[in-house]
Amino acid sequence: MDEFELIRRFVDPVARATRNEAVRLGPGDDGAIQSVPAGYELVFSIDTMVAGVHFPNAYPGHCLATRALGAAVSDLAAMGADPVCFTLSLTLPHSDEAFLSSFFQSLSDRAQALGVALAGGDVTAGPLSVSVQAHGQVPAGAAITRGGAKPDQLVVVSGTLGDAAGALDMLDRDRPNEYQGALLARYHRPEPRLALGQRLRSMATAAVDVSDGLLADLGHLLVASGCGATIDASAVPCSDALLRCAGQGAGVLALTGGDDYELCFTLPEVQWSDELSETVPLTVIGRTHPAPGLDVVNRPPGLNRAMTGYDHFGGGRE
Amino acid sequence: MDEFELIRRFVDPVARATRNEAVRLGPGDDGAIQSVPAGYELVFSIDTMVAGVHFPNAYPGHCLATRALGAAVSDLAAMGADPVCFTLSLTLPHSDEAFLSSFFQSLSDRAQALGVALAGGDVTAGPLSVSVQAHGQVPAGAAITRGGAKPDQLVVVSGTLGDAAGALDMLDRDRPNEYQGALLARYHRPEPRLALGQRLRSMATAAVDVSDGLLADLGHLLVASGCGATIDASAVPCSDALLRCAGQGAGVLALTGGDDYELCFTLPEVQWSDELSETVPLTVIGRTHPAPGLDVVNRPPGLNRAMTGYDHFGGGRE
Repeated sequence: MDEFELIRRFVDPVARATRNEAVRLGPGDDGAIQSVPAGYELVFSIDTMVAGVHFPNAYPGHCLATRALGAAVSDLAAMGADPVCFTLSLTLPHSDEAFLSSFFQSLSDRAQALGVALAGGDVTAGPLSVSVQAHGQVPAGAAITRGGAKPDQLVVVSGTLGDAAGALDMLDRDRPNEYQGALLARYHRPEPRLALGQRLRSMATAAVDVSDGLLADLGHLLVASGCGATIDASAVPCSDALLRCAGQGAGVLALTGGDDYELCFTLPEVQWSDELSETVPLTVIGRTHPAPGLDVVNRPPGLNRAMTGYDHFGGGRE
Repeated sequence: MDEFELIRRFVDPVARATRNEAVRLGPGDDGAIQSVPAGYELVFSIDTMVAGVHFPNAYPGHCLATRALGAAVSDLAAMGADPVCFTLSLTLPHSDEAFLSSFFQSLSDRAQALGVALAGGDVTAGPLSVSVQAHGQVPAGAAITRGGAKPDQLVVVSGTLGDAAGALDMLDRDRPNEYQGALLARYHRPEPRLALGQRLRSMATAAVDVSDGLLADLGHLLVASGCGATIDASAVPCSDALLRCAGQGAGVLALTGGDDYELCFTLPEVQWSDELSETVPLTVIGRTHPAPGLDVVNRPPGLNRAMTGYDHFGGGRE
């Protein structure tokens, strides 16, 4: 199967199934064309996943599609953007029909569910990797960045954390039990918090998606904002599945595990209301303060300095 | 050097050196933000280059940067778009400081020359590859696509063809002579025909950049347009350097060699004038006709059917 047949058989059907009005020209030309409504801005983010680094070498095609697309679209959620479309660059060692069929069917289903059209892409030969660039739009000036947090605001996280990291040592398990299955689903099929992000764009002062781990990602937000925070580790929400599978290790996984793609954001206390939790449960885990650094109280057993991501963002303190 | 230090030392300086007003938020957040003026549309294209496939395994960093950026921006030229910005996803087996320094310095220089700001990106561990997504803008509806050619229009190419393909067997030459050096420069440092593309957007009916070879790329344009063409192979322009280095083989290289990133376009004859050649020499090489297929007259010795890219685009004829 040459590149052109691969595109005709696998890429074009996804483009047709996912198309929307904003994409004026999809795959097949030198470039794609997207219309951005007057008064809106384009938001975009590219993410690359490499076999053996970001996913197992023998990873099913459908899992790779849902993971790569979910991770890229999650960045739109963190910015408060409405999803529009995406480009895909797929590098493959050989054209394995079963893999391609599984990958592109899952990509099509997931793209439709997330509301993003396949607008363009590239298929090349080489070691397996996939790059997805997600495109969204926001009213001009309304995007949520990492840099707007002010002292004395709430630090909030969505959903539960640590699940995807808890799944890492069971990726090759043939018959996971109910709890293991729940963790694996979090790893294979990230759920970008799009509705929450859109809701937050008139409220949150800063936001980030939890892809590297809560302490690392919140640390980036605090550095960008020029303030610090104290969080209560015992308030960080863990799923029943993680508590069942990881036991006492759950607390460390929730603070340091990546790949959950929940949102962590800051909010003036007057903006907080239980109604915000309508689409996904939210938990207040701490509060910002003027001094730089991320303080963690009620640390779980086993959390050490090297696991906090502290060294990645200068200016922090314990 | 971890990912954050790499970004701080190499990515951030390029973003600062290349920034422009359209990029409202550059690298360092969950996503970048681009403003698209009212009445304009976004044009974008992603290209991936993999070591050992699209460039030699021991390829200098500065050459990789100019080649990857030039190839991506060339797609904007083919659409008639004004260049705005780009994202970069770089996958590296290890952090080689000399390579990174050479790559990013060259990227910065070339991006400034081409007028594109580094808006975002991703740096990951893995086998060496680079993806660049170029972003441009056009007045709404004014982009040149591959699908607008009509019968009885001129087929035109810019510059000279075959040079980059002529360089392929001298990539590891330490002391190239003057002519070899000219071919190597074409391969290492593509020159996107941006000014020509912008000029053509009120004139050309269809355009494509020559990345896979003239016969293959013109073939794609004809299939997309639903017509055919006859071209005179003896009219296809070759450089003196190619004639000196490849001798009788020059004709085949000009018809089938990729990586030159010249434009091939169709134009109503009434639109043709010598003034169009102001920024780069143009040559009329043939004419479109209603019947599908690409006919080549005055074929050079050595051109066989398999080299025409014929099998890649159904509906053609010899």
